[in-house]
Amino acid sequence: MTTYRSLEWRDNSLVLLDQRVLPHNVRYLTLTRVEEVAEAIRNMTVRGAPAIGSAAAYGMALAALQNRVLSTQKLRHFLEQAADLLKASRPTAVNLAWAVDRILDRIKINPTADTEEIFQIVLREAHRIAEEDVRTNRQIGLNALPLLPHKVTFIHHCNTGALATVDYGTALGIIRTAHEHGHEVFVYVDETRPRLQGARLTAWELQQLGIPFQIIVDGASGFIMRTRKVDAVVVGCDRVARNGDTANKIGTYNLAIAAHAHGIPFYVAAPTSTIDLSLPNGEAIPIEERTEDEITTIEGFRIAPENASAYNPAFDVTPASYITAIITEAGVAYPPYDESLPSLVELAQQWRTTITEQD
Amino acid sequence: MTTYRSLEWRDNSLVLLDQRVLPHNVRYLTLTRVEEVAEAIRNMTVRGAPAIGSAAAYGMALAALQNRVLSTQKLRHFLEQAADLLKASRPTAVNLAWAVDRILDRIKINPTADTEEIFQIVLREAHRIAEEDVRTNRQIGLNALPLLPHKVTFIHHCNTGALATVDYGTALGIIRTAHEHGHEVFVYVDETRPRLQGARLTAWELQQLGIPFQIIVDGASGFIMRTRKVDAVVVGCDRVARNGDTANKIGTYNLAIAAHAHGIPFYVAAPTSTIDLSLPNGEAIPIEERTEDEITTIEGFRIAPENASAYNPAFDVTPASYITAIITEAGVAYPPYDESLPSLVELAQQWRTTITEQD
Repeated sequence: MTTYRSLEWRDNSLVLLDQRVLPHNVRYLTLTRVEEVAEAIRNMTVRGAPAIGSAAAYGMALAALQNRVLSTQKLRHFLEQAADLLKASRPTAVNLAWAVDRILDRIKINPTADTEEIFQIVLREAHRIAEEDVRTNRQIGLNALPLLPHKVTFIHHCNTGALATVDYGTALGIIRTAHEHGHEVFVYVDETRPRLQGARLTAWELQQLGIPFQIIVDGASGFIMRTRKVDAVVVGCDRVARNGDTANKIGTYNLAIAAHAHGIPFYVAAPTSTIDLSLPNGEAIPIEERTEDEITTIEGFRIAPENASAYNPAFDVTPASYITAIITEAGVAYPPYDESLPSLVELAQQWRTTITEQD
Repeated sequence: MTTYRSLEWRDNSLVLLDQRVLPHNVRYLTLTRVEEVAEAIRNMTVRGAPAIGSAAAYGMALAALQNRVLSTQKLRHFLEQAADLLKASRPTAVNLAWAVDRILDRIKINPTADTEEIFQIVLREAHRIAEEDVRTNRQIGLNALPLLPHKVTFIHHCNTGALATVDYGTALGIIRTAHEHGHEVFVYVDETRPRLQGARLTAWELQQLGIPFQIIVDGASGFIMRTRKVDAVVVGCDRVARNGDTANKIGTYNLAIAAHAHGIPFYVAAPTSTIDLSLPNGEAIPIEERTEDEITTIEGFRIAPENASAYNPAFDVTPASYITAIITEAGVAYPPYDESLPSLVELAQQWRTTITEQD
């Protein structure tokens, strides 16, 4: 759908668009080992909850491929280790564990498969996860459409576009769908410190999509809401608890509080793969802390004084009470989320099962 | 009081600490012309509402000095032009106009002064403004002290220290006073995009004062409030309207909304020189828009894609309803501010008059 792909399986390797050097350099990395995939997730060569889920699934395929010479039993054991390695690469987004567990489940229900068959099973499931992701995102966009006025101004946080997913995007997919359906769209793009995914990645995607936008600093959102007409805030998510509490890129919570104070709808775009029904609320979501130098230096240039310390939580949790609706591929969830989310997750599960059976 | 001074009158010139190259370089610029002062205010060599007020006052002294050869009438006319030039250099902080008008008033009440006397009158008033500023800041710190617990964790925005003033600081002065009076102080320092005054300047000042701190991205304040114990948010201001609405560095409003949502006191440190009783509320405060490249580039390195546009309001307005108290040198103002502020401004005015008469 887009001319760039965040990730692609090609010639028995995983090709990743290196998001650390965008927008000024478009560079692809070719990975052939699961350890490389775990490292690429950790160092944010690939980022965005759905994209890292899909990358991890292909990481499992690489793990199977690189060990086809082992005995079946040893390969199964190695794949379990690979799964642990991948899951440990970043803690907050649940898509990682979700995708890897889907792969493990597939292997388990095929106990007699030989090593070549195991590889094929893993790869087929990884492809399925990637294809589902694109369909899911398109459907999230369509499901959001009735919520938006014809002339619609968004505030958007971080990057949730094709780059953050396999293709199309989640919250940015909503913006895209509105644009494609003839809405008059304008986007205020939170630059999203410290990694500047908004200024670097979202701005780049919006340029290529021909959607008008302006970058703002994260602290300006309240001022924008107060002085300009903002119709909706849309964000992605890294993990949604059963009650609707949502972990997402640091700064999301401040944005939600500001939207609430101004009576502006705050929408979370959430593939059901990001909903973790096992957690009763956001308290239990692990929040990754990343290194201080993401804050104290920019592009290798030190901003803060030498020896100055920074605290760098990579995510925050927005309480459900600040979220107007959670938009999934199976429909729009409204509060109380502990009722609406489980039924949408079940619906999506049924949909997936039906599609899988058609294979 | 501190080993560095943001500005100083020396050998008939104005010496400015160049705040654009801190913390990595400590460089002083020596200015001899009022036009240079206006440019230094515009390009933020000197910044912070009280500091630019004082710099502008010395700018008037330079204007008088560089034109002592003119006729008295011509000099008076030139000083009025110089005043307009200085006032136009940055629009939001009222201290600029306040300081320049104080100088003009002094000249007006001395209609028979010759050019040398005019210079001396202007310089004396500029010195008085600078000395008052330091006393004012110390008193703001002392006035805030009873509001703070012994173990006190602050969130602080932008830079409001000795660098933003003539010496000691306003909101950072409150933090300093608490530290000097034996409170156990910790500060979360908003990095304050786009100019990063927090990461660059406040961190540098806190290091030298030996006050423990961590830098955070501006978007993290809500998460910090939710997960750590924060006792107070303290900020400075560029202009306070009669009803308490407060213009300050962009991001202040988001921080105030977040503090409000968490029931955390939000204090504005305001020298009475920053209170503009002529404005009924914040609507009328002019908000400076600065150039896009403050957002799209950092330290000369382009972050955003080529041709990507940014919107860069330099300030925002926090409505009075989000402000727990406004701490001035004449005392602490509580709501309703349109009653408390005018009486504190009057008190400060009387205090100033008394001191002036003692000269």
